[in-house]
Amino acid sequence: MKMQNLHEAMLDMLKDTYDAEHQITKALPKMIEAAKNRELKKAFETHLRQTEEQIRMVERMFETLGEKPSRKKCDGMAGLIKEGEHVIEEGGDPDVVDAALIAAAQKVEHYEISAYGTLRTWANTMDHRDVALLFDQLNRQEEETDRLLTRIAESRVNQKAE
Amino acid sequence: MKMQNLHEAMLDMLKDTYDAEHQITKALPKMIEAAKNRELKKAFETHLRQTEEQIRMVERMFETLGEKPSRKKCDGMAGLIKEGEHVIEEGGDPDVVDAALIAAAQKVEHYEISAYGTLRTWANTMDHRDVALLFDQLNRQEEETDRLLTRIAESRVNQKAE
Repeated sequence: MKMQNLHEAMLDMLKDTYDAEHQITKALPKMIEAAKNRELKKAFETHLRQTEEQIRMVERMFETLGEKPSRKKCDGMAGLIKEGEHVIEEGGDPDVVDAALIAAAQKVEHYEISAYGTLRTWANTMDHRDVALLFDQLNRQEEETDRLLTRIAESRVNQKAE
Repeated sequence: MKMQNLHEAMLDMLKDTYDAEHQITKALPKMIEAAKNRELKKAFETHLRQTEEQIRMVERMFETLGEKPSRKKCDGMAGLIKEGEHVIEEGGDPDVVDAALIAAAQKVEHYEISAYGTLRTWANTMDHRDVALLFDQLNRQEEETDRLLTRIAESRVNQKAE
């Protein structure tokens, strides 16, 4: 599909991100099971619930834009999730696995920070203020999760993994 | 390969990132060709030269760590680059393509920001101060490229694409 304007590009990226969030809800239960550190397990659990809420937020955005929610396969997220799966398959010392799981999860967070950041900027360009506010909220939630993962890594997991 | 300590995890991630940087040098020439906006074309060209330098920096880090540089297929980057290729293949209005190319490139930048950020933290945990400083430099270069792309998008490209 040839994109003719920014509105079409935004819809295309929204479908991609909608698919990415679904992929994350499939991946997180495996990360929760593989994590040893309690705080990390809890952070993944919280993020799973948050991701489910985010899916509903993205659905509301489709509606606001007069569209039916639909998914477009997100190759970027598929690759990032594969990295997390490798960590689990390869295994090793549980503390090292925790450190590597955090690294993989932060790459996922950064994907979303970037995607929602772009969508926010595009929505602002088109004066879709209400949609831009929601994208801003999603962008901030992902940034917060990223910071929480850094805190967990630096406070405990990395030292144990050393 | 089961990872037994943080040093092994760092080496594993360095191999992954080394491969990612090589993938980027293959992808950027296509992005340069596809970009219409002059400033964007120039930013991609500059980033190509910078990526080649970064590859040499990563090689020096392998040496510092007493290892031979080697690559491990980076699935995350492969997926992100596929997204950029879709933009080029699908095509459309040149200004919209530019906006979508910036979005794809910023996802690549965020991958690297995350990877070098983790590597910096891990190197600090293990008291590899010299290596940590190099990772910090790489992390900052990627953040700078990301900000430059945001500026190009907001100053011109997005308005034209609208």
